[in-house]
Amino acid sequence: MRKIDINCDMGESYGIYSLGNDEQMLQHVTSVNLACGFHAGDPRVMANTIVKALEYNVAIGAHPSYPDSIGFGRRYMEMDKKDIYHMVMYQIAALQGMVTAFGGSMQHVKPHGALYNRAVKDPVVAEAIVQAICKVARQECILFAPANSCLLELGKQHGLPVAVEVFADRRYLQDGTLVPRTEANAVICEPKQATEQALQFLRDENKVADTLCIHGDHENAVAIAHQLKHGILANGIHVEAVGQWKAI
Amino acid sequence: MRKIDINCDMGESYGIYSLGNDEQMLQHVTSVNLACGFHAGDPRVMANTIVKALEYNVAIGAHPSYPDSIGFGRRYMEMDKKDIYHMVMYQIAALQGMVTAFGGSMQHVKPHGALYNRAVKDPVVAEAIVQAICKVARQECILFAPANSCLLELGKQHGLPVAVEVFADRRYLQDGTLVPRTEANAVICEPKQATEQALQFLRDENKVADTLCIHGDHENAVAIAHQLKHGILANGIHVEAVGQWKAI
Amino acid sequence: MRKIDINCDMGESYGIYSLGNDEQMLQHVTSVNLACGFHAGDPRVMANTIVKALEYNVAIGAHPSYPDSIGFGRRYMEMDKKDIYHMVMYQIAALQGMVTAFGGSMQHVKPHGALYNRAVKDPVVAEAIVQAICKVARQECILFAPANSCLLELGKQHGLPVAVEVFADRRYLQDGTLVPRTEANAVICEPKQATEQALQFLRDENKVADTLCIHGDHENAVAIAHQLKHGILANGIHVEAVGQWKAI
Amino acid sequence: MRKIDINCDMGESYGIYSLGNDEQMLQHVTSVNLACGFHAGDPRVMANTIVKALEYNVAIGAHPSYPDSIGFGRRYMEMDKKDIYHMVMYQIAALQGMVTAFGGSMQHVKPHGALYNRAVKDPVVAEAIVQAICKVARQECILFAPANSCLLELGKQHGLPVAVEVFADRRYLQDGTLVPRTEANAVICEPKQATEQALQFLRDENKVADTLCIHGDHENAVAIAHQLKHGILANGIHVEAVGQWKAI
Repeated sequence: MRKIDINCDMGESYGIYSLGNDEQMLQHVTSVNLACGFHAGDPRVMANTIVKALEYNVAIGAHPSYPDSIGFGRRYMEMDKKDIYHMVMYQIAALQGMVTAFGGSMQHVKPHGALYNRAVKDPVVAEAIVQAICKVARQECILFAPANSCLLELGKQHGLPVAVEVFADRRYLQDGTLVPRTEANAVICEPKQATEQALQFLRDENKVADTLCIHGDHENAVAIAHQLKHGILANGIHVEAVGQWKAI
Repeated sequence: MRKIDINCDMGESYGIYSLGNDEQMLQHVTSVNLACGFHAGDPRVMANTIVKALEYNVAIGAHPSYPDSIGFGRRYMEMDKKDIYHMVMYQIAALQGMVTAFGGSMQHVKPHGALYNRAVKDPVVAEAIVQAICKVARQECILFAPANSCLLELGKQHGLPVAVEVFADRRYLQDGTLVPRTEANAVICEPKQATEQALQFLRDENKVADTLCIHGDHENAVAIAHQLKHGILANGIHVEAVGQWKAI
Repeated sequence: MRKIDINCDMGESYGIYSLGNDEQMLQHVTSVNLACGFHAGDPRVMANTIVKALEYNVAIGAHPSYPDSIGFGRRYMEMDKKDIYHMVMYQIAALQGMVTAFGGSMQHVKPHGALYNRAVKDPVVAEAIVQAICKVARQECILFAPANSCLLELGKQHGLPVAVEVFADRRYLQDGTLVPRTEANAVICEPKQATEQALQFLRDENKVADTLCIHGDHENAVAIAHQLKHGILANGIHVEAVGQWKAI
Repeated sequence: MRKIDINCDMGESYGIYSLGNDEQMLQHVTSVNLACGFHAGDPRVMANTIVKALEYNVAIGAHPSYPDSIGFGRRYMEMDKKDIYHMVMYQIAALQGMVTAFGGSMQHVKPHGALYNRAVKDPVVAEAIVQAICKVARQECILFAPANSCLLELGKQHGLPVAVEVFADRRYLQDGTLVPRTEANAVICEPKQATEQALQFLRDENKVADTLCIHGDHENAVAIAHQLKHGILANGIHVEAVGQWKAI
């Protein structure tokens, strides 16, 4: 039976500032990527989000980023390989320690925003991230990465279990890359369209998709999550956290 | 045979800024308290300092702080118990994960600066710190705290192994508390005086001292470390990391 | 004719995070206190808010704070007098320079959150703030402060023009101080109640009130602003920015 | 008579961290570029450095940067034109307001590190910086920029007075650009070599040089400053702050 994971960024509130519909999204997704304090999240937000995710029995991953709270981690920063390596180690170590403290375990790592985008095409950045994961989590943690990316390739080379990610609610260009966020139509806000795009990926035998990403911070996020999950189930596909069915 | 640990703050450089004589101090101390990025330290500094400490076979602890890089964690901040709890969890989780990644283990936790001073007399702050240590490190980590402090008391109550700390190079008031850093004579810069103060503590049967703190960021720091260690050894006292001889 | 200013905090968004109903509030208030980047606000938010306030012809003031974005400036921080002096200088210089750049002028300074609360009762903190204002704005800028506060007293002593502030939507204790924000009933969310409290202040001949503070970040904020203004006007009181009618 | 300005970065300490030999450098240079809190400097450091520079009668400029204290502003960051514009406005407004408060005036603006390097070749970044200077300082402030740079060109187009900068203690490549800091020989540490390079620039009739940059944070900095100044004077060239002899 075909299986799929649905993931969503989470814990991206900060201090007094609230972002996303975390508790509602937790009712629909199977994995969450938790901000680690560099682009969003603070220790209280992280702890509360971990507790909530464990309550809903949703798998938890780290979502490390460039250190850029004003830019929400969406701006590329020039950074030495060593600095990326240490910076990712720090963030995933913090998240992993806290998740473990609350009785869970860190299922995966998915780099955030500009760091993710860079790692798709820059093997140096990709390798720094992969080495940090290996160093902290020792091949016991799944790397989320898009198909045909440097990040995916380096993850495999270093022996990390990988989950191929596709986006349900982001538009793709012909060449398979994402429409940049600076474009008006970058995000798919229509639940039906997002569901259809996801189902196309799942039906295409030439494509691999282990986890579907949806975003929790736009207006229709909860509706998309709800329709997407039910649309997938209605097509006889099993929705479950990737750590449960992908060999680690 | 009488045993004593000698500890020192370390890894308090930041970006381009260098502080302390870390590598030289590592040749004399048996435990180091590593900044976790909130008052000092950054991921690169943390990683490099961990690697160095492991090289010198010196025991590593976390040195969590209020989030105050401009004030170097030396300024009291009003903070909810929950916020202290989460903030300390985050910092010691990050440090623990990185130490483990490099093949070591976290021997102890010693709060830094204003957080330490507050925890001495404020049971709410002390308990928040102790709970964070228990949650992340599960009684497998030693708490450093001064005698007769709320911090020591709460640590014991929650079942944490504790090490009583005295300062070799800070002057004490009659009531047993430290001369505040705002006073000119707060720090003992004379190696002989620091050694004598330490030996007085060690000879006094009414006093407990498991670990002696010295500071690495003043002019005579290395000389103090050197004389102190040899002065202690010359008195037939064994100098060794507390985790090696104190039951955990 | 009796005159009153209505002020509101503003520009407290940060990066991707949005807070408050700034544009709607601008339609009702006569003065705004703009975050300067230390508890909230970033350069983009500051610039955009200045431009909007000038569009609506609302007077602009600086809202300096302790450096604490996670705690939104609501947590007391121990800080040297000199450090407060320099920190406030920096923030109001930045705001003043930007306001001037966009063609306006800085009408007033109102410290934010914990810094304001501390300056009410701590003459050292109050004097540091007052000296910073005098140094940067040279008696050409109005200090907002509550009646009977150290802040008001020091402002007068140093020759600053002052505006006595009362809160329309915060509850007061019998002794004239505010119900702390940690209490459930600290904020008045009912427009009618807020208006009545304000009118009581304005009718009481024993009380001075130059500016009424309302908050822009709770649900009923816009309704309160609207009712308050019309309730005051209906009582024959003129609503105008304090800089227009108070001698500077 | 040929005239030249000598400038140096300054006020780059931060909290407890000390960097550079500010007071000694002030005895040799005629202009200083003051960190504005984004890559280095804090309000106390800024205020103290301003006071010192005024004491030594050295001209003061703003040294705005990307927001990157860990990387000391030396790492490129992707940033919208608007964000650069607002970010530079904020920093030079803060510096200008503080300098004015202490009785001085802001002579010039020189972008720092990666922001400067980017503005040399990227007209969008250059224009954002130039527009920020025009907006805050209204053509009354000199822009420092290298010859043949986008930054210089845009400054002239927008009517800013400009000073062409050459580096005395940084090595140049054949194409006139600087040897990157990642290279071992990027910095000239030998006073005689730095002086000779400077004199070559000053003698070359095909080259324009209004201000010579030297760095204050390496070992020989003070010796270079001393020799450079005397070597120039010995060649009959007048050393004076550019604002004194360049028409604004």
